[in-house]
Amino acid sequence: MPRRSAAEARETRARILRRAVELAALDGLEGVTIGRLADDLSMSKAGVYGHFGSKEALQLATFALAIEQFQELVTSKADGTTAGVERLRRLCDAWVDYLAAGGIAEGGCFLTAAATEFDNRPGPVRDAVAQAGERWLSYLGHLAAAAVEAGELPSDTDPAQIAFELNGIAMSANQAIQLQRDTSAPRRARRAMHRTVGGS
Amino acid sequence: MPRRSAAEARETRARILRRAVELAALDGLEGVTIGRLADDLSMSKAGVYGHFGSKEALQLATFALAIEQFQELVTSKADGTTAGVERLRRLCDAWVDYLAAGGIAEGGCFLTAAATEFDNRPGPVRDAVAQAGERWLSYLGHLAAAAVEAGELPSDTDPAQIAFELNGIAMSANQAIQLQRDTSAPRRARRAMHRTVGGS
Repeated sequence: MPRRSAAEARETRARILRRAVELAALDGLEGVTIGRLADDLSMSKAGVYGHFGSKEALQLATFALAIEQFQELVTSKADGTTAGVERLRRLCDAWVDYLAAGGIAEGGCFLTAAATEFDNRPGPVRDAVAQAGERWLSYLGHLAAAAVEAGELPSDTDPAQIAFELNGIAMSANQAIQLQRDTSAPRRARRAMHRTVGGS
Repeated sequence: MPRRSAAEARETRARILRRAVELAALDGLEGVTIGRLADDLSMSKAGVYGHFGSKEALQLATFALAIEQFQELVTSKADGTTAGVERLRRLCDAWVDYLAAGGIAEGGCFLTAAATEFDNRPGPVRDAVAQAGERWLSYLGHLAAAAVEAGELPSDTDPAQIAFELNGIAMSANQAIQLQRDTSAPRRARRAMHRTVGGS
């Protein structure tokens, strides 16, 4: 029997991870186990295991793909817009659209779920989640700082405060959408974010 | 052997639940099982089981006690203040103090954790979490409406929008404290809440 080609192995690994992200979006990263994925994809446990080597490596790779999908769905939507308030608004609108659609796989914001799941469990997964949260806050702060530099926001604006508040509005919207099925949440979130971003 | 008195049974049940809240604060409501509590409190499984009858009843009683502790730690702090902006501010300050202290048992906001844990799991626990979230938002909205009636906030204020935004600020603070160990988060949260509550 011929060995599987490297390209086939990459495709299998990618297929496992796409399914892992869907499962994690619904049941949390702890719900992603090699046994469950093997059942779900009609593969052997050894077959899934061989691509990752440990549950932790599988969780880390799943989280990394979720972040990549978030960037594709949200961050990339503001690419190409001139730095400043307009770019921040475009980003916020894409962010709210993403939350209104239920996140990556209708389970809500992946990072919020992973954060509450792992904030009390020291280890590489917690570190990866904390770093992703910090990168996102710092990206938002960077966009706010660019709007200050462009003279669109007052010079005494605190970019980190804007990032902190936008993150909260998104979390409130995520909870209202996921827990309360509140259809007014996206509108409330847009209104609060646009006021926070200012410039109008 | 004499039967345990009803008072003793109530005290045992209360002791089990206090420990259940601590465990749930750290590891989520799903981490609260009859077996784990029995181990933890050096009781028999049957002894713990007899007080609740099912894992779900145990989770519901645990969640109810957590809400009671939250009311004691936060809501009661604003009791006795005249309705209006001052009362909202007192409540917000107590809320941020609670989050800065790490919530009920250093595991962060209990409701946020339970919400992300159960939002995709239909059943009585999810319903209880959703109802608690709604009651809290409606209480915040009620305080904001009272501030409008007292003429301390503009008549076109949307109380539900204020509740939505305060909830988000608290969630952002909770994440920054729990995940990033960010010591500036309580200050940022107070600043954002006081501005949202307005009246100054």
